[in-house]
Amino acid sequence: MVGPSRFMTLVSVFELGIVDRLRATPGLTAAQLAEAVGAARPDAVEQLLFLLVKEGFIAQDETTGGYRLDALADVAESDLKRALSYMNLIKVTALRQLFYLTQSVRTGTVVGLKELYGAEGTLYDAVDDHQDLNDSWLTLMNTVTANIDPWFFANVDIPPGSQVLDVAGNTGLGAIHTYRHKASPGLRVTTFDLAHKETEALANFKAEGLQEHLSFIGGNVFDEIPRGFDVALIKHFLDMFDKADVLTILKGVHTSLNTGGTVHILVPVYPEDIKEAGNYNVDFFPAFFLGAAMGQGGPQKLSTYQSWLEEAGFEVTAALTKDSSEIPADVIPVQAILSATKIA
Amino acid sequence: MVGPSRFMTLVSVFELGIVDRLRATPGLTAAQLAEAVGAARPDAVEQLLFLLVKEGFIAQDETTGGYRLDALADVAESDLKRALSYMNLIKVTALRQLFYLTQSVRTGTVVGLKELYGAEGTLYDAVDDHQDLNDSWLTLMNTVTANIDPWFFANVDIPPGSQVLDVAGNTGLGAIHTYRHKASPGLRVTTFDLAHKETEALANFKAEGLQEHLSFIGGNVFDEIPRGFDVALIKHFLDMFDKADVLTILKGVHTSLNTGGTVHILVPVYPEDIKEAGNYNVDFFPAFFLGAAMGQGGPQKLSTYQSWLEEAGFEVTAALTKDSSEIPADVIPVQAILSATKIA
Repeated sequence: MVGPSRFMTLVSVFELGIVDRLRATPGLTAAQLAEAVGAARPDAVEQLLFLLVKEGFIAQDETTGGYRLDALADVAESDLKRALSYMNLIKVTALRQLFYLTQSVRTGTVVGLKELYGAEGTLYDAVDDHQDLNDSWLTLMNTVTANIDPWFFANVDIPPGSQVLDVAGNTGLGAIHTYRHKASPGLRVTTFDLAHKETEALANFKAEGLQEHLSFIGGNVFDEIPRGFDVALIKHFLDMFDKADVLTILKGVHTSLNTGGTVHILVPVYPEDIKEAGNYNVDFFPAFFLGAAMGQGGPQKLSTYQSWLEEAGFEVTAALTKDSSEIPADVIPVQAILSATKIA
Repeated sequence: MVGPSRFMTLVSVFELGIVDRLRATPGLTAAQLAEAVGAARPDAVEQLLFLLVKEGFIAQDETTGGYRLDALADVAESDLKRALSYMNLIKVTALRQLFYLTQSVRTGTVVGLKELYGAEGTLYDAVDDHQDLNDSWLTLMNTVTANIDPWFFANVDIPPGSQVLDVAGNTGLGAIHTYRHKASPGLRVTTFDLAHKETEALANFKAEGLQEHLSFIGGNVFDEIPRGFDVALIKHFLDMFDKADVLTILKGVHTSLNTGGTVHILVPVYPEDIKEAGNYNVDFFPAFFLGAAMGQGGPQKLSTYQSWLEEAGFEVTAALTKDSSEIPADVIPVQAILSATKIA
């Protein structure tokens, strides 16, 4: 019940710059902080900081009333930056939109985007037209990709000289990462996504000097996926859809691969024991996908994705969930890699 | 970080009517529930229910996939109704508004009300013009008053024949309750609030047949409070203001009372040890008052209110916090009563 107010109290203390001020000058009082960060009322700063004192993030000296960073003093800059990216994403793309969650579930559309932005489609459509959504989304996605891609490529096999298709590869970042991590003579990576992304993708390839090794094909995964590939990558994509659409995509990829070819999937997963403590994936993703991003979709358990791969004609050869001890406490998604081979 | 999504997932499962359906017909599958409650996609129902299964609110049969109420089956109807009133209040009056918490703290105004409703004032002004805010607010207030007033009147002394002033008494409910709980020969209760509330207050007194014992005086607590009273009541009001305004009110009440007269205050309080586990007052009230209701204010510790009463010239004679064991787990505010006498 206190979820939204706890969340925004914490976000606000950062947004106001109170944490930065206390890092620079420990011991400031509520009145001094209010003046420094441009808050209208000292009492308001004191009110917000009650929660941070409760949580041990900030400490207050009972005699002087001055505040200093407590647990927050020990958080590494990079960890804090990542956590703030997540919090900003949730604030900008979800907090208000989730007010309409019930209507979103009724209609299967993101009613919050329509109500707040007049946007008819998904969050991924809306980011093209709305700078605030785009900033929030892109900042997080870049953070996530930078953190997870090294792990992904360290755990998938892409044989030398492979013809690789990056399914729904957006503007080519996945293709670039594939080449950087898995370069081999003859390796060729093709980004497959909506045609309007081609210009930017090609520009990205050229900026990296990889235009000879990377290419772009425009199209829609629900129409027809180009054929003749040895390896297909599906990263950050399957969790956007309901089962029927996931199967359509997997069957399309199955058709697109040469016999013996392999698909590698990167996707967040729910724990097999849904009650697993310390795992917050079901606390976040259903509401986010249904009410803020897609009007459908959401991750599944690893075992569910395995069975869907089999249903699409694949043999699953590897299924690896990122070890929770390697995931910082502020990161919600627990990512997994599924590798599967087209056997016939 | 998952606060907003957890909150709205739970709210949505109730709003969709899934809980009611499962109470009536245990064992329904996601597909059957989606059909029954008018959700576009069975997968969406399954996604939402992951969290309720995680929390043990609802159970799922692994064989049939059917759901049934688990812990929710044991929650009394009245408890559920109260919890849903709170959740609806938070959803309607706070969830979207809190997006603007930082700007609210900067300006000292409720920016979310302005952005979402075009309302310039406080939530208490806005409820007059916006039915959705009013419905949500009034439903909760009636629930809170019904639960807390018997406790309040059982713990305050109102001598027979007292002249009582209910400060900021709205449309007279407090006056009516005072008479009902404390009737004595000569007891007279006066509701003091903004003049435009007089008509409704007098109608309420008449509807109760109490027009001979209850009266109304129009005015503003920050201008001048009427004088000559033996007892003043300040219920659900002090937590709306910063220290300076609270002191203005307390000093005004001091002037309004006869020497030897008493003020009884009902107000939620923060725990003396702000880190007290299981107490969520600082998790909720600062953000609510600053970002959703007033643009200022918020409760204080009992000891803070005691010192402010003394600063205003009172002698505190009783300070009583409601025992946490008497407060249902879903109720956030921990209420306290402070009684104080005008000694000179």
